[in-house]
Amino acid sequence: MSDREQFLISEEPYYREVHKEIELYEAAYAVRMPLMLKGPTGCGKTRFIEYMAWKLGRPLITVACNEDMTASDLIGRFLLDANGTRWQDGPLTTAARIGAICYLDEVVEARQDTTVVIHPLTDHRRTLLLDKKGELISAHPDFQLVISYNPGYQNLMKDLKQSTKQRFGALDFDYPSADIESEIIAHETGLEQEAASKLVQIAHRGRNLKGHGLDEGISTRLLVYAGQLVAKGIDPKAACQMTLVRPLTDDPDMRDTLDAAVSTFF
Amino acid sequence: MSDREQFLISEEPYYREVHKEIELYEAAYAVRMPLMLKGPTGCGKTRFIEYMAWKLGRPLITVACNEDMTASDLIGRFLLDANGTRWQDGPLTTAARIGAICYLDEVVEARQDTTVVIHPLTDHRRTLLLDKKGELISAHPDFQLVISYNPGYQNLMKDLKQSTKQRFGALDFDYPSADIESEIIAHETGLEQEAASKLVQIAHRGRNLKGHGLDEGISTRLLVYAGQLVAKGIDPKAACQMTLVRPLTDDPDMRDTLDAAVSTFF
Amino acid sequence: MSDREQFLISEEPYYREVHKEIELYEAAYAVRMPLMLKGPTGCGKTRFIEYMAWKLGRPLITVACNEDMTASDLIGRFLLDANGTRWQDGPLTTAARIGAICYLDEVVEARQDTTVVIHPLTDHRRTLLLDKKGELISAHPDFQLVISYNPGYQNLMKDLKQSTKQRFGALDFDYPSADIESEIIAHETGLEQEAASKLVQIAHRGRNLKGHGLDEGISTRLLVYAGQLVAKGIDPKAACQMTLVRPLTDDPDMRDTLDAAVSTFF
Amino acid sequence: MSDREQFLISEEPYYREVHKEIELYEAAYAVRMPLMLKGPTGCGKTRFIEYMAWKLGRPLITVACNEDMTASDLIGRFLLDANGTRWQDGPLTTAARIGAICYLDEVVEARQDTTVVIHPLTDHRRTLLLDKKGELISAHPDFQLVISYNPGYQNLMKDLKQSTKQRFGALDFDYPSADIESEIIAHETGLEQEAASKLVQIAHRGRNLKGHGLDEGISTRLLVYAGQLVAKGIDPKAACQMTLVRPLTDDPDMRDTLDAAVSTFF
Amino acid sequence: MSDREQFLISEEPYYREVHKEIELYEAAYAVRMPLMLKGPTGCGKTRFIEYMAWKLGRPLITVACNEDMTASDLIGRFLLDANGTRWQDGPLTTAARIGAICYLDEVVEARQDTTVVIHPLTDHRRTLLLDKKGELISAHPDFQLVISYNPGYQNLMKDLKQSTKQRFGALDFDYPSADIESEIIAHETGLEQEAASKLVQIAHRGRNLKGHGLDEGISTRLLVYAGQLVAKGIDPKAACQMTLVRPLTDDPDMRDTLDAAVSTFF
Amino acid sequence: MSDREQFLISEEPYYREVHKEIELYEAAYAVRMPLMLKGPTGCGKTRFIEYMAWKLGRPLITVACNEDMTASDLIGRFLLDANGTRWQDGPLTTAARIGAICYLDEVVEARQDTTVVIHPLTDHRRTLLLDKKGELISAHPDFQLVISYNPGYQNLMKDLKQSTKQRFGALDFDYPSADIESEIIAHETGLEQEAASKLVQIAHRGRNLKGHGLDEGISTRLLVYAGQLVAKGIDPKAACQMTLVRPLTDDPDMRDTLDAAVSTFF
Repeated sequence: MSDREQFLISEEPYYREVHKEIELYEAAYAVRMPLMLKGPTGCGKTRFIEYMAWKLGRPLITVACNEDMTASDLIGRFLLDANGTRWQDGPLTTAARIGAICYLDEVVEARQDTTVVIHPLTDHRRTLLLDKKGELISAHPDFQLVISYNPGYQNLMKDLKQSTKQRFGALDFDYPSADIESEIIAHETGLEQEAASKLVQIAHRGRNLKGHGLDEGISTRLLVYAGQLVAKGIDPKAACQMTLVRPLTDDPDMRDTLDAAVSTFF
Repeated sequence: MSDREQFLISEEPYYREVHKEIELYEAAYAVRMPLMLKGPTGCGKTRFIEYMAWKLGRPLITVACNEDMTASDLIGRFLLDANGTRWQDGPLTTAARIGAICYLDEVVEARQDTTVVIHPLTDHRRTLLLDKKGELISAHPDFQLVISYNPGYQNLMKDLKQSTKQRFGALDFDYPSADIESEIIAHETGLEQEAASKLVQIAHRGRNLKGHGLDEGISTRLLVYAGQLVAKGIDPKAACQMTLVRPLTDDPDMRDTLDAAVSTFF
Repeated sequence: MSDREQFLISEEPYYREVHKEIELYEAAYAVRMPLMLKGPTGCGKTRFIEYMAWKLGRPLITVACNEDMTASDLIGRFLLDANGTRWQDGPLTTAARIGAICYLDEVVEARQDTTVVIHPLTDHRRTLLLDKKGELISAHPDFQLVISYNPGYQNLMKDLKQSTKQRFGALDFDYPSADIESEIIAHETGLEQEAASKLVQIAHRGRNLKGHGLDEGISTRLLVYAGQLVAKGIDPKAACQMTLVRPLTDDPDMRDTLDAAVSTFF
Repeated sequence: MSDREQFLISEEPYYREVHKEIELYEAAYAVRMPLMLKGPTGCGKTRFIEYMAWKLGRPLITVACNEDMTASDLIGRFLLDANGTRWQDGPLTTAARIGAICYLDEVVEARQDTTVVIHPLTDHRRTLLLDKKGELISAHPDFQLVISYNPGYQNLMKDLKQSTKQRFGALDFDYPSADIESEIIAHETGLEQEAASKLVQIAHRGRNLKGHGLDEGISTRLLVYAGQLVAKGIDPKAACQMTLVRPLTDDPDMRDTLDAAVSTFF
Repeated sequence: MSDREQFLISEEPYYREVHKEIELYEAAYAVRMPLMLKGPTGCGKTRFIEYMAWKLGRPLITVACNEDMTASDLIGRFLLDANGTRWQDGPLTTAARIGAICYLDEVVEARQDTTVVIHPLTDHRRTLLLDKKGELISAHPDFQLVISYNPGYQNLMKDLKQSTKQRFGALDFDYPSADIESEIIAHETGLEQEAASKLVQIAHRGRNLKGHGLDEGISTRLLVYAGQLVAKGIDPKAACQMTLVRPLTDDPDMRDTLDAAVSTFF
Repeated sequence: MSDREQFLISEEPYYREVHKEIELYEAAYAVRMPLMLKGPTGCGKTRFIEYMAWKLGRPLITVACNEDMTASDLIGRFLLDANGTRWQDGPLTTAARIGAICYLDEVVEARQDTTVVIHPLTDHRRTLLLDKKGELISAHPDFQLVISYNPGYQNLMKDLKQSTKQRFGALDFDYPSADIESEIIAHETGLEQEAASKLVQIAHRGRNLKGHGLDEGISTRLLVYAGQLVAKGIDPKAACQMTLVRPLTDDPDMRDTLDAAVSTFF
């Protein structure tokens, strides 16, 4: 299997459009504008980029960024083989060569050398200098760079530099509206609309606690987990505690509040 | 011996169910939901996961996480041999390939690159990008990821990111009730129920001091140590001091308090 | 393709002179004076150096500096091949050998070993000691070193040492005047002068907020992004929010202020 | 010489029992309980473990822990040879394979990865995962893990984690009583009992200053040094200053106080 | 070309003696006393050492020190070639072998291992232990060690240890007197004495601002830059702003003050 | 030349005994007691250990410790050659094998792994575990370990651990008395006793300033430097400023005070 095929999305991912994000993305992709997807964890950013890659028929290479990642992890490195060293492209280089969409998830977590290395790929140059190899590559015409970050994590210590930010157009994401979210839960778990709707209402109560004892709201992903357990025959209350309450907090008061929210509906 | 057989649990581990954790685990495993086991040190989390691996007939790969562990320690690395480099899978990759349960013990101790690397294995993608090798692997259908952590260690400096937490269902663990714990001690040491019960009562006194001079309560594991020495003919008082008091604290007042508790029963 | 050709600018880059920077650059280049380009992000420093490299017919090697870059990343390193180690020139060494203009972008981000290593190339010696190789190379007569930095980032923790600063002449850059900037936007996006002018006026409002809630003004680059989306038929208001507002700030008040500025013109 | 023989203690070490530590150790070894030896520097912990290894006829592998030691220093690593890489067992792995007592001296100094790596060797599993090699080894039935640490060093920054502490039984050590210590000095230096007794009395005065200007008391080891010099014909006062005073402190007042104590007896 | 020839200064460097530094240097070199050159950036320390190396007919090896430099960067390291490892002397080792003057520029920037490694070369031993190679080399009789540092940078965090300082004689350097400095500018740029003198007067005004808003005075090097641009026909005011003002400061008030000083003379 | 011969002191070093340090050293060496030499920089500790090594006819291996030195720098490491890896003994291992005196200069500067690694060489075991090689070596009967440190540097951040300190006897060193020091200067420089005596008197004035503006007194070594320049015909005042004043301080007041002291005598 060639590199390109390995990274193609073979089946249409389930995605429910919220605002006009599909149209805006298509226009941005048409001019190969680098994009930044902003929004809380588990609200559908990863699913959206997979959907767009599928819709546009482009390979997608996703990299989960972290503070220990080096520029070499993105660009590539020399490996030893029987004839000496052999160059191994990193995921960013592969994406630039095969014309993939390269999705750097939570790029704000990465060290600066990771974020600076993408600069020449995000302006009119569209080049990448493999300095260790002495090669200057021009990105494939289909290549596009997309990054995500969660403004909730943004703090004084960790933020993108302005010279990085100003290289991206930005799309905001949030949890879907109650109707759409219920529809998503039902679709992903096979639950009835009514049970799905109850889970969404519990989530809304939990999301109101963000900033008042919870760092982050209950994500759509956790609602799907809860629904899956209920669909397996687990008592809804136990299922919700296991998926919507226990993972989020160890604070006894917050747990009581969330448990009470669960009890209201089940 | 193949990799898979090396990691199978050959004999049924002794495990005493406390709440309904076995049923909940089985439902979560049925949908391959990533799980987080929460609870104090030495209360049986490791024993539980070994029991479940045995019950489900799945290999178990355990990794004791620590702050010096890198993503390569989990994923794998290139080694040199006579024909150049050879790829060596790490424990997480092995688990994903052979369909094992991968248990990351005290994952909160690990560096961020360790925790972020598990993200694509914990959502609908169930993939792992071996970026150094340029290979995207899909997890075996039997693969499941389980992590443990001790909320008592949780502090401002070290906590899982919300984007990691919200990928797991969670099960709470605590010390077993007095009856069950006595039964466990008796089973593991061969002591009479009565002596085992005295040890458990000493433990209860010690556990009340958690947060009042002790960082952590006396674990079931230490009670087993005490029982083993008593069963070997050591004076119970000396045995308790050596296993229930001296390891826990060097504070003279706390030692006196704990020694007094021991004297009450032996 | 030889190294030299790979780094030549083949087509004249579009550049609109603002002050007399072209004449000053040419005089500085005539005596091979090292230069420092100062100014905010996205105001045209990179475009200017590309234009000058084209005008002077010199190859251009650009390195995006970052805090994880080592001196070896600039100078070079030994690699293994079938016959043992082979020296691989880094970009600075290549530039010194082939007589390129070496442009170190945001050099203040680099570690000290990167900035000190350039010293002997920036005085009468014009030499570079490849200490790992034991070779002292004299720069090609055409070689020139150019660095950029953004005074807005300058702080107590990160600044060039005086012994580095005093090796460079300096040229100030800023956003172009309204007329010139509108002309640039129109040229780069194909928009009418009038729409381009509206975008520039929005930018001026945003730039006044620098230091009053925004870390940096809206760059010319972002205006080009906005114009490109409008030219693709996207509603101007949505286009401006996506390119001039969302990338810059997550502060609700600043977003309202900037959205209001957009609404004034579209 | 095989690995095992290299680590056997060939002659009975001189050891004077203080409490019942020999009996307690033997019972703990019988159930292969991991042990922690606690006490001040130079009071005989190392001598005790050598004595026990001799008494039980087990090889002893001692590792002086330090904050730069990595898990690989304990477990092992790949080395290159003519046919590629060759695995070299570390001291902990060797001990687990040959059934040695592995003594980790001042384990609290080590980094976390060193302390966490011992966990699976200290519970019912008695296994060690050589993750870099993909091998899970079961400890030899004779293997036992012993660690030492000095509570006086214990501080907020450096302490064992509770999940480590609760894997060990603990034995307290302190300086021997005056009679026993005099006997030890006399035995080790060939001095008369009377001179030895004077040295011990000086030590007692110094030990009272612990926490009142001295970080640590005068160790038995230093008394042996003093006795050795006196036995070589050095003036006792000069010998004591050189071995009991100058090494401990540079504070003029403390030196005067200790010199005065010396003058009282010699 | 042999190593020695590569480092000989082939042409007499232009150097204007200020005090009796040439005589003092010659006497110090006669007894091979290690020397420390002290003074602000750009006042001629590097030129002086090149002049002395030329005058004494000794090769000169200059190393720009920095905080990322390791002892191996000075001493040397093993490299791989077809027959295994090959030792590569570092610049300090080369200098000790061939009898060069080794000039460590801004040695205070280096890490401690760099500064301690020079100790045995700076006392009666005149040896260098290549510990990685197990070789003890005696310095060539012509070898001398010279270091520079700028007292202005000296602070509590970064200073040479007394045990390093007390191994060096020291020569103070400062900007030359007005007459001599004008002569230097005229010589280096081809300007008339009068124009050169104006530049020096501007510099004097700037140097008075050191400690009152400027970290460092305007160096002789920058005056040469200014003179070169004027000699190329650039307007003197623009030339001075580009070389004497913009590189030094971004503070608007300081820039105005310096611009005013420029306007006084041109 | 064998390793042993390379490290023998071939000529008697000039050393003037101050107290009874030679006798004390000989007694300590007779029982192979590890020793610590304490005293200010440049007072003769290094010369003393060279003298004793010569007197006892033992090879001397000196290591200048520093904070970047690792345990491997002392013990040794594997190197690659044509047949794979080859072990290279470090200086401490070489000393233990050939029976040298190993002198660790300023050991307090080293990292903990360096200081802990010497523990088993400094008690009754006299062994060194080459853990990377899996070899336990017993020290040659002639081997002795000597360390130096300067109490003036001792601070809260950097001090030897008590468990290290209590493994050494200690000898105090200080500047010699005026008579002896004059004799040393005269011997080393060829100056008349009178001129030497003047230099010593200047030094005494400077030493009184220690702790009152100077971090450290003027060392005997610097007096020798001054004498050497005077003997070469340099004006004594200039010679003293260059060697006794400028290296020590950049504080204008301290320089005036020291210059005045110089003027009193020359």
